[in-house]
Amino acid sequence: MPPEDADVLHGKGPAMGAVLAGAEPRNTLFTGSQRVAEKLALDLRGKVFLEDAGFDWKVLGPDVADVDYVAWQCDQDAYACSGQKCSAQSMLFAHNNWVKAGLLEKLKSRAASRQLSDLTIGPVLTWTTDAILGHTKRLLEIPGAKLLWGGRPLTGHTIPQCYGAVEPTAVSVPLAALADAGAFEAATTEVFGPFQVVVEYEDSELQLVLDALERMSHHLTAAIVSNDPKFLQHVLAHTVNGTTYAGLRARTTGAPQNHWFGPAGDPRGAGIGTPEAIRLVWSCHREVIYDYGPAPDGAKLKTT
Amino acid sequence: MPPEDADVLHGKGPAMGAVLAGAEPRNTLFTGSQRVAEKLALDLRGKVFLEDAGFDWKVLGPDVADVDYVAWQCDQDAYACSGQKCSAQSMLFAHNNWVKAGLLEKLKSRAASRQLSDLTIGPVLTWTTDAILGHTKRLLEIPGAKLLWGGRPLTGHTIPQCYGAVEPTAVSVPLAALADAGAFEAATTEVFGPFQVVVEYEDSELQLVLDALERMSHHLTAAIVSNDPKFLQHVLAHTVNGTTYAGLRARTTGAPQNHWFGPAGDPRGAGIGTPEAIRLVWSCHREVIYDYGPAPDGAKLKTT
Amino acid sequence: MPPEDADVLHGKGPAMGAVLAGAEPRNTLFTGSQRVAEKLALDLRGKVFLEDAGFDWKVLGPDVADVDYVAWQCDQDAYACSGQKCSAQSMLFAHNNWVKAGLLEKLKSRAASRQLSDLTIGPVLTWTTDAILGHTKRLLEIPGAKLLWGGRPLTGHTIPQCYGAVEPTAVSVPLAALADAGAFEAATTEVFGPFQVVVEYEDSELQLVLDALERMSHHLTAAIVSNDPKFLQHVLAHTVNGTTYAGLRARTTGAPQNHWFGPAGDPRGAGIGTPEAIRLVWSCHREVIYDYGPAPDGAKLKTT
Amino acid sequence: MPPEDADVLHGKGPAMGAVLAGAEPRNTLFTGSQRVAEKLALDLRGKVFLEDAGFDWKVLGPDVADVDYVAWQCDQDAYACSGQKCSAQSMLFAHNNWVKAGLLEKLKSRAASRQLSDLTIGPVLTWTTDAILGHTKRLLEIPGAKLLWGGRPLTGHTIPQCYGAVEPTAVSVPLAALADAGAFEAATTEVFGPFQVVVEYEDSELQLVLDALERMSHHLTAAIVSNDPKFLQHVLAHTVNGTTYAGLRARTTGAPQNHWFGPAGDPRGAGIGTPEAIRLVWSCHREVIYDYGPAPDGAKLKTT
Repeated sequence: MPPEDADVLHGKGPAMGAVLAGAEPRNTLFTGSQRVAEKLALDLRGKVFLEDAGFDWKVLGPDVADVDYVAWQCDQDAYACSGQKCSAQSMLFAHNNWVKAGLLEKLKSRAASRQLSDLTIGPVLTWTTDAILGHTKRLLEIPGAKLLWGGRPLTGHTIPQCYGAVEPTAVSVPLAALADAGAFEAATTEVFGPFQVVVEYEDSELQLVLDALERMSHHLTAAIVSNDPKFLQHVLAHTVNGTTYAGLRARTTGAPQNHWFGPAGDPRGAGIGTPEAIRLVWSCHREVIYDYGPAPDGAKLKTT
Repeated sequence: MPPEDADVLHGKGPAMGAVLAGAEPRNTLFTGSQRVAEKLALDLRGKVFLEDAGFDWKVLGPDVADVDYVAWQCDQDAYACSGQKCSAQSMLFAHNNWVKAGLLEKLKSRAASRQLSDLTIGPVLTWTTDAILGHTKRLLEIPGAKLLWGGRPLTGHTIPQCYGAVEPTAVSVPLAALADAGAFEAATTEVFGPFQVVVEYEDSELQLVLDALERMSHHLTAAIVSNDPKFLQHVLAHTVNGTTYAGLRARTTGAPQNHWFGPAGDPRGAGIGTPEAIRLVWSCHREVIYDYGPAPDGAKLKTT
Repeated sequence: MPPEDADVLHGKGPAMGAVLAGAEPRNTLFTGSQRVAEKLALDLRGKVFLEDAGFDWKVLGPDVADVDYVAWQCDQDAYACSGQKCSAQSMLFAHNNWVKAGLLEKLKSRAASRQLSDLTIGPVLTWTTDAILGHTKRLLEIPGAKLLWGGRPLTGHTIPQCYGAVEPTAVSVPLAALADAGAFEAATTEVFGPFQVVVEYEDSELQLVLDALERMSHHLTAAIVSNDPKFLQHVLAHTVNGTTYAGLRARTTGAPQNHWFGPAGDPRGAGIGTPEAIRLVWSCHREVIYDYGPAPDGAKLKTT
Repeated sequence: MPPEDADVLHGKGPAMGAVLAGAEPRNTLFTGSQRVAEKLALDLRGKVFLEDAGFDWKVLGPDVADVDYVAWQCDQDAYACSGQKCSAQSMLFAHNNWVKAGLLEKLKSRAASRQLSDLTIGPVLTWTTDAILGHTKRLLEIPGAKLLWGGRPLTGHTIPQCYGAVEPTAVSVPLAALADAGAFEAATTEVFGPFQVVVEYEDSELQLVLDALERMSHHLTAAIVSNDPKFLQHVLAHTVNGTTYAGLRARTTGAPQNHWFGPAGDPRGAGIGTPEAIRLVWSCHREVIYDYGPAPDGAKLKTT
């Protein structure tokens, strides 16, 4: 691209907003927080593509296999980069077959092995330690909730107080408790840090899980861990996340860079990663029809 | 589609607006006026696809041929269905070579032949006779403007006063006059009736024509009448209309139903007519990645 | 298509061959027997697309479910239309889990219920009764082979002797016997009638099954009946049939008309059923690059 | 690709032929001479993709412009790399408007400026000097043919006699002479060196030009030099070359590497240069249909 075809502006949001208001751009792609995304959607009268938030879940199906591998993947999805990925696993729905198979113990052990010295755990940029621990405490007030691991500040460090520094944390919340709107709102608040909610379920409760998935907003990415085609079919058919991994190796993070990544069903949602996504977001369809002739004798054509 | 998969509601706009506000639909396709379209874009926070207005122009290039055919097509584009098509020709930029070749006389003659008795002219649903004649008068106040033909009410009919009944009308406006913002706004106001503005230009004035095209809003459809590839290239490269016909047979209306029809560059714009358009408006991309294994030994995988 | 754009010739093969030799067509699509297909490939120096024979197999994997449904589908695939479909199931590889689950009894019962009175069995056009029974006898001479059901002429009918009239028939052949080239040739000869070969296998013998599938020619259609993704992956990865159904409901016949049907890997193979197939067989890619200019000053360009 | 997935064999043709005969490959891509290509098509019973010869033409239309540029491009197409490209311009059909505009003088001047010292002319690998001059002499025996330029050996060099060393050469052949089969065969014999045939034509003779183009074999690449859309349409509609440049800047050689290059209409023809071409030649369509269920109750399904 010729350098003169691009302008780079650096400044605060309000200044940028004033520029946009004056320029009346035909199209704007925004990457950032959900709050600003929604403001821009209004200010620009919907002429936007948005890359904003996602609350990403994983469902472990009834068929158990490769427990060590799944434990490693779950730990990576929740805590790698201290959970600071837009694709991080925020809520884990675990069929009780997996709990019986010892998955939670393996996850706890993986979490306990994370330490500052090798940066397998580290500072959180956008949530302070107090905010994360306060959110943990709020979740633990949900009836039946319990702390599975973590929930304590990191020690022996010099991370400034404007950042967060907590142990990898998991809070178990009963599936039934999610029926309460307040509890649901709390449990599905995205923490951009090493924090996840674990929800156990049994065969007879799958519909309740699907109901919870439907009620979430920002259906970005998700994972369904199962090699049972009928289970996969059923959960895929009743969910709407834009990028969904299915199969025993399903993950939410660390995806290869060669597939579509984006929400589904929101006309403002920006996909990335494939030529189709780039065309959709950065370009558009324009139809030019050439019609050179020959032409019939116009003098003989009737006015209609 | 199973009948129970669709709901059909019939009612006034405010009632429908209340339904939408309550339902919070993931996506809404709206077909109708620009005013309501913009309101919905705000009410639904940009989660819309819009089929609304278009102000459609035709440029006749310097190479003259098939004058009778082009005259017939221009007459059809401006006045068929009494100009009541979203694709009707509202502004005709005519290179003076076409004027010298007698195009305007042929257009005037075609217009004069339209009559109520065979419905080649008829009632206008959304503009009254007074409104159309008032708009005509307003345009004639632009310095240099002149009435080319029409500008009179139809006679000898019983069309109710709530509709419009005027002769096919054309007002010539000087290209230079379009530099004035008020004149430009008046000249580019869409009349959903048998009305067009004619603007002559010379070789040296092509850039002024392109400037006028750029300043219009709602770049829906357009036509560039020329068989000179370099002229076509130049005008196509400097305009943005979504569906543009190019070549001596170019038209704005009466297109076959097998190509994309829609605006370009507006992320809210709804295309119609092709599988791609239907996918874009009525469906969406969802990416499901299957990853069944085999999996490596998870116990040996490092926490990162 | 204008009628004058097509010529329809009706005649014997040699006459048609002479027409083709004289016309030197750029491309020929042939539908018919393998013998004539191969002759045309030589006569026309490879400028052909061929729709010819297929020897279609089905593999039942280790996971057993929906036995009644799978029995019904196997019976349909082998014997509907008296087995006279290019997609008919000619060889059934059954994991012994299915045998233990009673699949063969169910198949035998289905076969026994077929009768001339309701045309669930009927005349065979291209194989006589003697030819089918002779082929059956030849297979029964393979060491370990046994008749599972059928193998007798139909009675009480007036079907002329130039056609075939036999009971739905299945011959069991040991997997190990297929290692013999003569036995393999006999067992994989396509009978265009109500005839199939059944081969049992155990977990440890899957590689022998894959070897047999690889040695077959004319890899047209196939079915892998299993809902185990890893089993499907493994068999799909080691076979090359062009159209392969996978999953517990997999079939070889009765496919809906909306997908590609054709061989894979043979550059002469003609696909049918989709726009891609039609483009490939009936049309071709032609690339036209328009380059109108502007051109630089040629007088200044260097000769190289 | 893992190194063990490829075998590289180096040897003479008969040895390679024996390997192919023994291996019975599912598919073979051959790049080389037309003679071997046709032999392989037979030996491998049509299971081939062929990249072989092309006899490439250029037609200059009636509209003349940018004469210097077109002269430069024609000179490049015919003589760059001493004409040793599969896309080199072998026959130039020039409308007499171009001849009147002095194109041939400009071409002659360009040709005369080519010299060994800067390698704008050089040795020919596959035709000796005698063979090229003999072919020139043969063409000059066609009634009305004349030497336009060249036709002499290069001097003052040490190029061995097994190679060719001739001046850039053009022979003019009357269009009418091409009606003779022998003259046509001679004039359309591809010389892989700095040699071209020039054929003049007038408006009334366009059909004769099209007839000649149709009678050529190996319709690989071509160029139509005109900015008149109707002329382009007409010539494109009556020719079949696979890769055709159209427009005043049309060329046969030096194409950018981003478009399809290959013949049209020969099912054995191998395209190169685009993902579609690679898929067509190096891969194939295979259709896998997953059908996991749920299944209806098979016991209730009717035998048909």
